[in-house]
Amino acid sequence: MNTPHLSKTHPLSTAFCGAAKGNWQISAMHTLIGPSLPQVPCLEIVKPDALAQGPAPAWALYGLPSHLRYTTQAEKVVLDQHPSLLNKPENSCAVLIPIQKTAVWWQMAQDERRHIFEEDSQHIAFSQQYLSVISRKLYHAKDLGEDFDFLTWFEFAPENEGLFNELLDYLRSTREWKYVCREIDIRLFRSEASGLLPEVHYE
Amino acid sequence: MNTPHLSKTHPLSTAFCGAAKGNWQISAMHTLIGPSLPQVPCLEIVKPDALAQGPAPAWALYGLPSHLRYTTQAEKVVLDQHPSLLNKPENSCAVLIPIQKTAVWWQMAQDERRHIFEEDSQHIAFSQQYLSVISRKLYHAKDLGEDFDFLTWFEFAPENEGLFNELLDYLRSTREWKYVCREIDIRLFRSEASGLLPEVHYE
Repeated sequence: MNTPHLSKTHPLSTAFCGAAKGNWQISAMHTLIGPSLPQVPCLEIVKPDALAQGPAPAWALYGLPSHLRYTTQAEKVVLDQHPSLLNKPENSCAVLIPIQKTAVWWQMAQDERRHIFEEDSQHIAFSQQYLSVISRKLYHAKDLGEDFDFLTWFEFAPENEGLFNELLDYLRSTREWKYVCREIDIRLFRSEASGLLPEVHYE
Repeated sequence: MNTPHLSKTHPLSTAFCGAAKGNWQISAMHTLIGPSLPQVPCLEIVKPDALAQGPAPAWALYGLPSHLRYTTQAEKVVLDQHPSLLNKPENSCAVLIPIQKTAVWWQMAQDERRHIFEEDSQHIAFSQQYLSVISRKLYHAKDLGEDFDFLTWFEFAPENEGLFNELLDYLRSTREWKYVCREIDIRLFRSEASGLLPEVHYE
């Protein structure tokens, strides 16, 4: 695993650690494209400095929240009407999806990427229908030198997994997804004992 | 100085080091807004791992090249007609301008930032008039957790310093610059003995 040290000291960096123990149990790990990650039973979400103190995880994916890259002001107004609240008691299911996009994607100008992302693929317009039941948080990793460009974390209630799959099926059918060259779908549920968790991304 | 370790291990990271010795001599350091940096006589541009081997510089600013953030395809076509060539023999003058933008800037949606950057401030349209005589390279630092968000490196011939100042005066008069909360203007010239340099950003 290539985990450059640079990700470990960024004040906003979060580490998603696959390990034998953790607050989230992994029910399935499915690699859609590109190299897979070792199968592990649990995920723990920590600040990177906490990682140095415990036993080394099987793998650790780093990312950090950043500014909006494609969203327009008009879209932001709509999105802000449905703030994405994590850690709701009923949302005991989570999904972590690390994504890498191709060099061709990153070599495109801003308006070309935006056009594919929204005017063509309707990433925001389609997704916002699901915001009332699916919470999400995006972590950026590309400029940290990580293998993945983004990590997206989703939370929802078990009865809404079908809606989540519908959203995912849609996104994976879009033109935007033709530029995804690595994607892993990691399904999780809260460990029974853990209840509502002091995860670092709830801070 | 806050120089997080994360910048030191990124494979694309470049370190601009203010020190007693270096390939570039500093003729002036002028802080326009925000905290200044210690005055030093020279600048050396190295890969961060080289930094660990020599004596510690007075300060080191880190950044890395990244994808286009505001440029459209149509603008890219025009810009690509004037590729920015560094290390031309006649370009013995250089300027390093580290910039930080306000939290308000980064909280804006993409189209708001783009509108201020180009439709209002004409950052690209105005600058491109100068591309035949002023070469530049942009390094991103924000997502590395650095104090500065960008480092821009310029090179030009001594007789074109007036044109460079004209460009800079224009940019500093724009609405975009109202969101700049830290800016230092570092003027440099090649050390006589150094000739054309094996600087890391010429690789």
